[in-house]
Amino acid sequence: MRIRFYHARILSMNGNMEPETGELWTDNEQITYLGPEVQEACPRFDREVDLRGNLLLPGFKNAHTHSAMTFLRSFADDLPLQEWLQKQVFPMEARLSGEDIYWFSRLAMMEYLTSGVTAAFDMYFHPEEMARASVDTGFRTVMVSGLNNFNSSLEELRENYLKFNAFHPLIRYQLGFHAEYTTSRELMEGIAALSRELQAPVFTHNSETKAEVEGCIARCGMTPTGLMEALGMLEYGGGGYHCVYMTDADLEVFRRHGMTVVSNPGSNTKLASGVPRTAEILRMGIPMAIGTDGPASNNCLDMFREMFLLTGLAKLRERDAAAVPAEEVLQMACVNGARCMGLPDCDCLAPGKLADLIVLDLQQPNMQPLNSIVKNIVYSGSKQNVMLTMIHGRILYENGRFDIGEEPERIYREANRRIARIKK
Amino acid sequence: MRIRFYHARILSMNGNMEPETGELWTDNEQITYLGPEVQEACPRFDREVDLRGNLLLPGFKNAHTHSAMTFLRSFADDLPLQEWLQKQVFPMEARLSGEDIYWFSRLAMMEYLTSGVTAAFDMYFHPEEMARASVDTGFRTVMVSGLNNFNSSLEELRENYLKFNAFHPLIRYQLGFHAEYTTSRELMEGIAALSRELQAPVFTHNSETKAEVEGCIARCGMTPTGLMEALGMLEYGGGGYHCVYMTDADLEVFRRHGMTVVSNPGSNTKLASGVPRTAEILRMGIPMAIGTDGPASNNCLDMFREMFLLTGLAKLRERDAAAVPAEEVLQMACVNGARCMGLPDCDCLAPGKLADLIVLDLQQPNMQPLNSIVKNIVYSGSKQNVMLTMIHGRILYENGRFDIGEEPERIYREANRRIARIKK
Repeated sequence: MRIRFYHARILSMNGNMEPETGELWTDNEQITYLGPEVQEACPRFDREVDLRGNLLLPGFKNAHTHSAMTFLRSFADDLPLQEWLQKQVFPMEARLSGEDIYWFSRLAMMEYLTSGVTAAFDMYFHPEEMARASVDTGFRTVMVSGLNNFNSSLEELRENYLKFNAFHPLIRYQLGFHAEYTTSRELMEGIAALSRELQAPVFTHNSETKAEVEGCIARCGMTPTGLMEALGMLEYGGGGYHCVYMTDADLEVFRRHGMTVVSNPGSNTKLASGVPRTAEILRMGIPMAIGTDGPASNNCLDMFREMFLLTGLAKLRERDAAAVPAEEVLQMACVNGARCMGLPDCDCLAPGKLADLIVLDLQQPNMQPLNSIVKNIVYSGSKQNVMLTMIHGRILYENGRFDIGEEPERIYREANRRIARIKK
Repeated sequence: MRIRFYHARILSMNGNMEPETGELWTDNEQITYLGPEVQEACPRFDREVDLRGNLLLPGFKNAHTHSAMTFLRSFADDLPLQEWLQKQVFPMEARLSGEDIYWFSRLAMMEYLTSGVTAAFDMYFHPEEMARASVDTGFRTVMVSGLNNFNSSLEELRENYLKFNAFHPLIRYQLGFHAEYTTSRELMEGIAALSRELQAPVFTHNSETKAEVEGCIARCGMTPTGLMEALGMLEYGGGGYHCVYMTDADLEVFRRHGMTVVSNPGSNTKLASGVPRTAEILRMGIPMAIGTDGPASNNCLDMFREMFLLTGLAKLRERDAAAVPAEEVLQMACVNGARCMGLPDCDCLAPGKLADLIVLDLQQPNMQPLNSIVKNIVYSGSKQNVMLTMIHGRILYENGRFDIGEEPERIYREANRRIARIKK
């Protein structure tokens, strides 16, 4: 399938934050041309889309989520964190089947498409079902193992790593464990060995709450980050989800090992976890990416909300309206996310890169006037502006309609039917 | 015009936070029926709308804004507050004509409609042009005078009050001054006298920043709220915009005089002003309403963002994920806003009330599953869910299309043309 987008503004994010007028071509999963309007004879296209001045840019990468947790959306809110986890989340999760996870993941992927998200870094159970949901939808998923004391094993993790990295072009698999507080030293040492064997980075929930860090120090005399380094787990880099309570030494470890901080401002806000040291992290040159976290704790999967919160909370923390400018935020959402997830071909728009892209409607009141398109996206952008979402060269969402191999109504019906059963 | 909405879920907010199945009728500007599906012969309608299970609720009230500041959106961001005001906002505002304000206000009103906002409490210059923009659009505006040392006069304010409260059913006018730090004691005394003469409440920017409160104490030995009470300005109540830095005594004054705190969490975040004492304010029984503030400081006019931020920032401040539950927030956005603005007939859905209402699309992934519709609205709702916005019995926005007596393209063109001139 060859597609031509013309009369476009294009924000390639290929080292340039100024939109340019021109066109972009795709041939199956690849971008084949990006540049000025072509006057002479073009190749034959299967479809030509007149963007009428609207904006093409790389899709957003949701760099930390638990997609299937859509089933808990608005079920257990306005509760203290521990009560939420112990009384609501864990007992309900115990009742989930693989088939449940398939349908709840599909629901999340629909929402990603409406928010311009073209890839998600997804930690949950039943990788087989997650991968099937992703491939059936046409969505790109990087799964990350959530190994802990209660599920899975190092052998299974190793098998999954090899299997899912050769499974389908839309699927990748990264090494990870749930968190220091749910994972034994022995398992963590196993992860470290696996990381060295597979030459693979390691990802985990890291320093999300103050209690987590204090607990870790009480258990082993080190912060979670310090412990990971001490266990030899960071030789191939990786990243931390949340990273709200990081010491200077922790950040130094991240810098030294080229690791990424994946910030989850919506979740950290709604669960009252805290506000990370974003401005300092950027000053140290540590890359940051952005995730929504799961829909049980956020509750929505909206990268526009996350972008505004990421910079807004940093401004509040620094008491400085100039902290963390919009350009940095958009870079995190589009480019850094891809790199941290192991998707270097999805980071920006350029010939040879994968065609994971979105179109934003600038002909909406929240995008006018056009004083600065980048600042409009970060400070006033909304899901409502997402006209089109393309992944791997396929248009999956356009003008409010889904082309995902299943009727939306079926997915909603399955989600509601299954949550009714689980609630009983 | 008689309209029937049927097959609806209806959240009347008339003392009840559970949506009910049924239908709602309007006759010109009034709601005439709300209740179960009617089986017997109905009156004749000009239009019957099958809502297919989607949600009818009262429109959101934007209880503090400066609509015409759309012209500064994304023009002066990521700057420290004082630099922003002195170098960007004030010099640009000096170049605004009444006609500019008309077009920039129309742009903001379009955005309100996309966000389900059915009325705005608007402080800006050129009330004549603001009122004309509102009436031409079909939008409901409560103007509030922004009297200060540099513009207008008490005489003009009094004239405007009488004139605009008898101008058009869509327009109201309330007494206000810009802020203590821009208004002389003499003028404030004049406002107090006017308030008593007209038996009218008084509104102002109050305790938005720490520096503002400290400055006021240095000038007169009282907080802004204390000063207002001392000047006899609060006999008929009123409200404060922002109220980020309120003392216990200030809040006691608000409680005693039945005043409303109008919170502006998006603006307070983006300008790094701070986080108000929301949970304590609610515990004291002081009503809160929500505003976007102007689009130069927010930058968008999106009540979904404001609702999430209002509770999210309170949760962070209290370190309690249970602080300020969703039901309270929706009450602020729909009901309290109307009451504080002097629109008691727009607060909820009931026969005899004005037909200011919206329809939210529940058949969207961010609204599924339907564990709790109210929590879905506050925690995962988005502009994208707004299917229809009706004001004073007229449908102004439906399925992405505007019926506002002007082409959107014309409004965008005027906005861009005018900002280009002002920037020069």
